[in-house]
Amino acid sequence: MRAAFIALDWGTTSFRAYRAAANGSVLDTVTAPQGILAVTDGAFDEAMEAAIGSWDVALPVICAGMITSRQGWHEVPYVPCPAGLNEIASGCANQRSRRGRNIHFVPGLSYMSGDGIPDVMRGEETQVLGASRGGSETFVTPGTHSKWIDVEDGIIHSFATYMTGEAYAVMRNHSILGKLMQGDAADEAAFLRGAKLGLDRPGGLLHTLFSVRTLGLFDQLRMDSLPSYLSGILIGSEIGHAIAAGRKPSQETAVLGAAVLGSRYVAAMKVAGISAQAAAPTVAVQGLARIADALGLFA
Amino acid sequence: MRAAFIALDWGTTSFRAYRAAANGSVLDTVTAPQGILAVTDGAFDEAMEAAIGSWDVALPVICAGMITSRQGWHEVPYVPCPAGLNEIASGCANQRSRRGRNIHFVPGLSYMSGDGIPDVMRGEETQVLGASRGGSETFVTPGTHSKWIDVEDGIIHSFATYMTGEAYAVMRNHSILGKLMQGDAADEAAFLRGAKLGLDRPGGLLHTLFSVRTLGLFDQLRMDSLPSYLSGILIGSEIGHAIAAGRKPSQETAVLGAAVLGSRYVAAMKVAGISAQAAAPTVAVQGLARIADALGLFA
Repeated sequence: MRAAFIALDWGTTSFRAYRAAANGSVLDTVTAPQGILAVTDGAFDEAMEAAIGSWDVALPVICAGMITSRQGWHEVPYVPCPAGLNEIASGCANQRSRRGRNIHFVPGLSYMSGDGIPDVMRGEETQVLGASRGGSETFVTPGTHSKWIDVEDGIIHSFATYMTGEAYAVMRNHSILGKLMQGDAADEAAFLRGAKLGLDRPGGLLHTLFSVRTLGLFDQLRMDSLPSYLSGILIGSEIGHAIAAGRKPSQETAVLGAAVLGSRYVAAMKVAGISAQAAAPTVAVQGLARIADALGLFA
Repeated sequence: MRAAFIALDWGTTSFRAYRAAANGSVLDTVTAPQGILAVTDGAFDEAMEAAIGSWDVALPVICAGMITSRQGWHEVPYVPCPAGLNEIASGCANQRSRRGRNIHFVPGLSYMSGDGIPDVMRGEETQVLGASRGGSETFVTPGTHSKWIDVEDGIIHSFATYMTGEAYAVMRNHSILGKLMQGDAADEAAFLRGAKLGLDRPGGLLHTLFSVRTLGLFDQLRMDSLPSYLSGILIGSEIGHAIAAGRKPSQETAVLGAAVLGSRYVAAMKVAGISAQAAAPTVAVQGLARIADALGLFA
């Protein structure tokens, strides 16, 4: 198969590059520990070439993620919801790299909730474009800031961000809950116990979190099981609230993006009676292929 | 008035000593920055004498708070709910200090929720004993770990801990939300805006927290207003859940303990339609006086 473009999935803490065919099939992959936070002095061009310098400079490059934010290489304004392939393609920005690569930067989306609170994402819209099959769909992208994304006939109508991954990290590393913890062994039973409690009590998160301490104090959970239990409470609380707010993953491959974390979401959704599967991690490439096609890059 | 006892309110981060009459009237007060975390090598006796060495060694001493925890001076087992003055007095432990002071350590309480999750407190039970006037009462003790405490005819039947203060500290100091913040100026309008959102959406805390970032990004809140807004969301979420769980402060002086924080709780409760006032900070001394009396120390 002939390479038609280069896809960059460039986030805050990760960098993934793909040499791909026009149908999104991946021919080559490079990953590097150069998320935008790790790139100093704005040397994004150099960071890109260090990773993909051997790839044909004539291939168009299309990239999505926090690389298009104010802290990234080329800031692209948010496109407001509702937005689908056409609105996202129209919002792309274009720039030549030093070696003459033609780079297209994909915009993120913004959404204004009914009670006047804005929400934003960068990168997840591209995963959704790669995964969407039409009709009414809801996707979940687990992570530092998880998103629940509602799609109607390929148009993203609304979404909500949950700070689940970040809440886990700060409570694990900086709160009294971490003091009783040892290691980070994955304990599925403890995870599911926490997920059930989080699902049963989505509203009482500040209260339920304290059970991480008391179950440890009363020797009802081992110290090396407490991290999994904490993760379960947070993910269960997220899923419980999203369901209560009317969101429900409505197709099998609804969990996008994160591999290990994705399987935890799938397990917690099962506790909630929802059958879901994690989509292939290359769904972002398929989304970028669709945008590249809409931009006429394969003409 | 004649001094009848010495009351110590000795917590994780604070130390308050009172020379008091049998009716709880305070004759003398000493505060010191020697919470139990600041006392090294178990030198609690020395720390106490450094603060109250000039007070009559013949006066009985009675103390409550984390000083009776495993990390404190003398661990006293939790007394299970339901528990009132008699159960708490019966659970006290006794020890002579090096200078011969007769010290009584007040136990904390434990509570097992219907779904099998234990909860604990140390010190708040004493504040409640000082504030309770009989009948059905609900008290709130704001702080690092807030408590909502249900009392029936002076007996503490159940309570719930909320990690509100600690969640504020870790999100403020260690999450991306803190990155947009400047200063910690108290902005009452921003606090009340956050409190209203937290009250309206108690279940969606992980989602609502993200609005601290987006309202900053979209210049809808100033950087120095964001800390107050974050505090409002967390306190509103706590109050919203506690009310939804059937707890409601049922008398005017329902907010115990923290002065500045207490006034924030009173303001957020007003948004929720609840009229409450902060009790006098010496309510712990009145509770300790009641326990001392039950122990026969004034005989």
